[in-house]
Amino acid sequence: MANSSDREYMSRALYLARRGLHTTDPNPRVGCVLVRNGMIVGEGWHQRAGEPHAERHALATAGEQARGATCYVTLEPCSHTGRTGPCADALVEAGVARVVAAMQDPNPQVAGQGLARLRDAGIEVECGVLEDAARALNPGFIRRMEQGLPWVRVKLAMSVDGRTAMASGESQWITGAEAREDVQRLRARSSAIVTGIGTVLADAPSLTVRPATWQFSDYGPTPVRQPLRVVLDRALRTPADAAVIQADGECLILTAQETSGAPALREAGAEVLAGDWSPRQVLAELAARGCNEVLVEAGAELAGAFVAAGCVDELVVYMAPMLLGSSARPLLALPGLDRMADKYLLTLRDTRQVGVDLRLCYALAPR
Amino acid sequence: MANSSDREYMSRALYLARRGLHTTDPNPRVGCVLVRNGMIVGEGWHQRAGEPHAERHALATAGEQARGATCYVTLEPCSHTGRTGPCADALVEAGVARVVAAMQDPNPQVAGQGLARLRDAGIEVECGVLEDAARALNPGFIRRMEQGLPWVRVKLAMSVDGRTAMASGESQWITGAEAREDVQRLRARSSAIVTGIGTVLADAPSLTVRPATWQFSDYGPTPVRQPLRVVLDRALRTPADAAVIQADGECLILTAQETSGAPALREAGAEVLAGDWSPRQVLAELAARGCNEVLVEAGAELAGAFVAAGCVDELVVYMAPMLLGSSARPLLALPGLDRMADKYLLTLRDTRQVGVDLRLCYALAPR
Repeated sequence: MANSSDREYMSRALYLARRGLHTTDPNPRVGCVLVRNGMIVGEGWHQRAGEPHAERHALATAGEQARGATCYVTLEPCSHTGRTGPCADALVEAGVARVVAAMQDPNPQVAGQGLARLRDAGIEVECGVLEDAARALNPGFIRRMEQGLPWVRVKLAMSVDGRTAMASGESQWITGAEAREDVQRLRARSSAIVTGIGTVLADAPSLTVRPATWQFSDYGPTPVRQPLRVVLDRALRTPADAAVIQADGECLILTAQETSGAPALREAGAEVLAGDWSPRQVLAELAARGCNEVLVEAGAELAGAFVAAGCVDELVVYMAPMLLGSSARPLLALPGLDRMADKYLLTLRDTRQVGVDLRLCYALAPR
Repeated sequence: MANSSDREYMSRALYLARRGLHTTDPNPRVGCVLVRNGMIVGEGWHQRAGEPHAERHALATAGEQARGATCYVTLEPCSHTGRTGPCADALVEAGVARVVAAMQDPNPQVAGQGLARLRDAGIEVECGVLEDAARALNPGFIRRMEQGLPWVRVKLAMSVDGRTAMASGESQWITGAEAREDVQRLRARSSAIVTGIGTVLADAPSLTVRPATWQFSDYGPTPVRQPLRVVLDRALRTPADAAVIQADGECLILTAQETSGAPALREAGAEVLAGDWSPRQVLAELAARGCNEVLVEAGAELAGAFVAAGCVDELVVYMAPMLLGSSARPLLALPGLDRMADKYLLTLRDTRQVGVDLRLCYALAPR
C-alpha cells in the first residue's frame, strides 16, 4: 500500500519531471527518485528524446546504492527497446527492491508490460500514486497514445468586451509585455503552433520561441526547441519570405491542392502538403508526426472552427484592461450558434494576473 | 502625531462604519470608537438617516467614561444642526480629550468647521488617519459633495467571448445563482438603479433588493432599503403594470416629453419627468435627489452611452463560463470608436470567483 512518504517522494519525482516541460518532446516528461533507508540516493528526469530516460539518470547517480532501494517514477518504466534499452531491465539489474509508479504508460508498446516484467523479476510493484498529477504533466502524450490526437490549446487575446482588433484591422499587441512573455511559455511546451493564412498575411508573425532564462535546466543551458509551425493556407498565399518559414525551426503549410506556388515555398524551406484539412484531419496529421500539445494562435475564424469542431481542450484567454466597442473585431466566429441551448460550456481552471492583463484558463466541455 | 494604535482603533471604527453599507443612504457610512486608558469604552456606527450619528451611539455606550477619552471617527464630526444637534458639541460636552478623524467632511456645510469647533474648545484634533480607506467607504457621498454627481457602477454579465444574449434576444441569466446573489449586494449599497426601456420591455425586471441574511446588523434585522429605480424611456413605453413600477420602492421614469401615457404611469405610482436626459443630466438629477452610488443595469446601448459619456467610475463584469459566438449580442455599444488610440483604458481592481462565474472589477480611466 502507498503511504504518505510514497506520496512525498513521488511529488519530488513529479517536480523533477516538470523540468523537462519544454524539452522532452515527442517523449513524455518523466521524473525518477531512488530512496534507500529513507534517504534519496539518486534522482533524475528525462531531458530530450534520444537521451537517457529518467530512471537511467537516477540509477547513474545512485550507483551501488540502488541495490535494495525503492524507485519512484512518474510513468511506468519502459519494456521495449527504443533508442535505449528497456528501463525495466535496468532496474532489475540494479537490484531495486520496490517500484512505485504514478501511472501506467499509455504507449501501447508498454501498457503494463514494464510493470509486469518488474513483478516477474520479484520486485514489489505499485501503480497509481499521485496519478492525477502525473497525467496532468503529459496531457498531449497521453491523448496521442490513447486517441491518436494531440492536446489542443487555443490562445486568445482580447479586450474586456471580447474584442481582438479594430474593424479596420488595426491590432497587434493589445496585451502587455508580460502576457506576451507568458505566451512564449505556452509555445515552448507545445509540439506545434497552428495559425491561419489570414494571420500570416496580416501580422507576419514568426511564431518562434525566443531563448529565455526559464529554459535553463540544472544540467546547464537548454537549446531552444522550436515547435513546428503549421499554416492553414487553402490557396497557398504564404509568401516565400514569410517569417513563419524563414525563422529558426520547421514550417508545414497545409493547402487544399498542389498549385504552382508550392515549389517556391519548398525551396524556401517549408513543407507543403495538399489535402482536405478539417481541424480534425490537421490534428490527426500532427499526432502522426509525434505532436503532443498543439497551440492554436489564430484569428476568430480559424480559432472558432477548431472550437466548433469539438477539437479544443483548453482556452487560454489573455484579457487586456480596455474596451474596444462593438464595432471592433469579435473573438471567435462560431457559425450556426443561434440558440442558447447550443452554447459551448467551459470550466474555469485557473485565473491569474500577468502584468496588467488577466490570464484565464478554461477547459471546454465535450460536446 | 498618529501612532500605530491610532491606526488600529481607526481600523475598528472603519469596520463598524461598514455595517451601515446598505442602510445609511443618503448619509455617509460612519463609525466611531471611544478609547480611554487603552480600553474601548464606547463604539457605534451610523445606521439610518434620521437616527443618531456614530458619535452619539459611541457616547451613549461610554457614558461617564467618555470624559478624557480619545474619539476615533471615520468622518469629521458634524458642526451643523441637521436632524440631530452638532456632534462636535456633543463631544465637547462629554469631555472628550482628543479627536482623531480619518477625513474631513466633504459636505460644504461642515468642511472643517467641526474640527475647528473641537479645537476651539481645547480638544486635541488630528485628521487623515487611514484616510484612503475612509474615502473608499463613501465614494458616492464624497463625489456628490465635491462634484454634484454620484459614483457610477455599470454591471455587465457576459460570456467569455463578451456576449450577453443570442441574436434572437434569447437571454436571461447566463450567470449562476451566486453571481445573481452578488448583484443583490451591489443593488443594496446603491441609492438608485438605472435601466433602459429596452431592458424593461425585454426582461421585465423588478430591480429590487430581496431581504437576505447579510442585511441583518448587530442591532437586529434591518428593514430592506429599496434603491430608487430609474427607467430611461424616451417615448414613454413603460407599461403601467411593469414590475419596475409595481414592486416595493420608488420608480422614476425619465422621458423626452410629457405624453398621453404619463397620467396612467403616475396613477400606477411612478414619477414621470420630461427633459433632455443625457447620461450626465440623469446623474446630476439623481445627485440632486441625494443619490450617492448609482448602479447601471442596462443593455449594450445604454451601458455604452454612459461609458462613452465619461460618466462611469467602475465596471463590474460577471463572466459566465461559456462561449456564445460572434453572432450573439455584444456587451457594449461604443459608437465612434474606430481607432485603437480611442480605446477606453481600464484598471483591474479586483478578481474573484463567484460560484462558477468570475467577477472582475475595473476602474475606468478618466478621458
